[in-house]
Amino acid sequence: MNSEIEKLLAELGPEFEKEILRVIPREGVPNLHDAVWYHLDSGGKRLRPALAVVACRALGGDSGKVMPFAAACELLHNWFLVHDDIEDGDSFRRGKEAVWKKFGFDHGINVGDFMSEKVYELILLSQESGLGAEETLQLAKVVAETCSKTAEGQTMDMNLRKENNPSEEAYMETIKRKTGWYFTLPIVGGAIVAKASDEIIRKIREFGLKAGPAFQIADDLLDLTSGKGREDIGADIKEGKRSLMVVHCNKACSPGEKEKLFETLNKPREQTSQEDVLWVKSLFEKHGSLEYAREKARKLVGEAKEISTALPKEAMDILDSFASYVIERTR
Amino acid sequence: MNSEIEKLLAELGPEFEKEILRVIPREGVPNLHDAVWYHLDSGGKRLRPALAVVACRALGGDSGKVMPFAAACELLHNWFLVHDDIEDGDSFRRGKEAVWKKFGFDHGINVGDFMSEKVYELILLSQESGLGAEETLQLAKVVAETCSKTAEGQTMDMNLRKENNPSEEAYMETIKRKTGWYFTLPIVGGAIVAKASDEIIRKIREFGLKAGPAFQIADDLLDLTSGKGREDIGADIKEGKRSLMVVHCNKACSPGEKEKLFETLNKPREQTSQEDVLWVKSLFEKHGSLEYAREKARKLVGEAKEISTALPKEAMDILDSFASYVIERTR
Repeated sequence: MNSEIEKLLAELGPEFEKEILRVIPREGVPNLHDAVWYHLDSGGKRLRPALAVVACRALGGDSGKVMPFAAACELLHNWFLVHDDIEDGDSFRRGKEAVWKKFGFDHGINVGDFMSEKVYELILLSQESGLGAEETLQLAKVVAETCSKTAEGQTMDMNLRKENNPSEEAYMETIKRKTGWYFTLPIVGGAIVAKASDEIIRKIREFGLKAGPAFQIADDLLDLTSGKGREDIGADIKEGKRSLMVVHCNKACSPGEKEKLFETLNKPREQTSQEDVLWVKSLFEKHGSLEYAREKARKLVGEAKEISTALPKEAMDILDSFASYVIERTR
Repeated sequence: MNSEIEKLLAELGPEFEKEILRVIPREGVPNLHDAVWYHLDSGGKRLRPALAVVACRALGGDSGKVMPFAAACELLHNWFLVHDDIEDGDSFRRGKEAVWKKFGFDHGINVGDFMSEKVYELILLSQESGLGAEETLQLAKVVAETCSKTAEGQTMDMNLRKENNPSEEAYMETIKRKTGWYFTLPIVGGAIVAKASDEIIRKIREFGLKAGPAFQIADDLLDLTSGKGREDIGADIKEGKRSLMVVHCNKACSPGEKEKLFETLNKPREQTSQEDVLWVKSLFEKHGSLEYAREKARKLVGEAKEISTALPKEAMDILDSFASYVIERTR
């Protein structure tokens, strides 16, 4: 990540925490407030709030006014993870037990619901930080729209997992919906606070519709290398996720391989062995599916950078370093 | 329910549906849009949106401006039910399969999340209906605060279910948090749109902190009579819910009865027979716990009506008929 963002992360990390504490104190109802902080304390790079601040500054805005929104982006990201882990049956997150695993399944749902409301409570405090009513409303709107689209993408993703002949078109539509708007939410919010023009905001969103899917593909690749801090590599395979590698491999492999591939993906996750995972990975390698996915991500990042050239230099630099990060990150 | 609200329900029902259709069309992503409408079409009295309209009119507001918020109250209520059914393991709702049972558990969580975002999307459309920015923000704030408190109450309720000596104090705190704010949300919203004074809004909320718990106690009683449209009577007993009857009976019964009472409540719900349910019900009857709960609900309704006398006559009438409904409803 670029050094300005790294510096900001060190400088502003505690500030973001203070913002979240305004709406979720550490002491509160057992199995709720403690559960939220158990999750938040488990890590996360606070990348999203830093992006909101950087974007706001780059576009000439007062970053003091963006702080509640910035912190809300972090909270939002974390509530998605709390519910995602339940939906995907993931027991581990950042090397610790997932919230639902530690606090129970019914609490897990409710903890996420609580966090989702606190996202709005926090954003609606922006007026106290000096933001105008119209901009505050615009921030809330952009969050509601983005989360709705992301939920649609989540459904499409679940639907795709029932599909034994997933097309690249359906895959791309799914990840575009699931990540395309969400990816640039902090930057769009930063731009709103900076009172950027509609044209600039439109370009940032277009950028996200390329860079978001690139991020998702890169993330799927990481699942087979670093394992993203979950139990083992290949959790996506155990979940039966239709990644771009699955989509590509499905077209390239033999009928016998295809049968075994989907048999493995469709097994209940607790029945999928590490041997199964390694077999699928080797099938991907045999047919060049990993390389195909890497190339696709690179291409999307290129297209995203192309879009960013229409933006003011400072904004372009942020988007570009964000795009490079997508490709270069290792965990 | 009073006749003005009944007339409104007949007149405005389709209007509320049109509002919701602005943000959730019937055609959309399979297992999402259809799931929302499967749930919404299953019934519900649309009481909440009607209340918002009646309150707004009674306080001199333009009811056209309250329509998005009113419909959002219905959507909000229904998303609570979608997640509640998962958390409580209820398979039936309004005589049909619950959303999670019909569409699957992972979709069920995501459908609720989607609905919760659409609540805000809808409220934020209020400006298009002529509502000012400040009032629109106030509506969103009141929703976020109310939902946060309700989620806290939900956690407290779950915590209480692990308690084998639940006190009346803990019980009352729990239902106050779970229902106290939520109960008058539509009326508070109607008052905001009508630009009612802070004093009026404060009184409406105080009213809710009495009438909401009364509603909850009456609801628990209904579970043992009509069964609230779920599979059988006594679903709360199967879930191990610590109702006011449990709290009262716990103090009144013999040590042997107490042991059997909690043994029954703590059984996994699929192992709780209808005979178990009837045994608990008869224990409640033996010790006067049903009558105790009925009396407590009546007392709270009386206190609520007392608070409402400080309001303008039209607003008082609405709150009073709402309070009477709490006690008189049969399903």
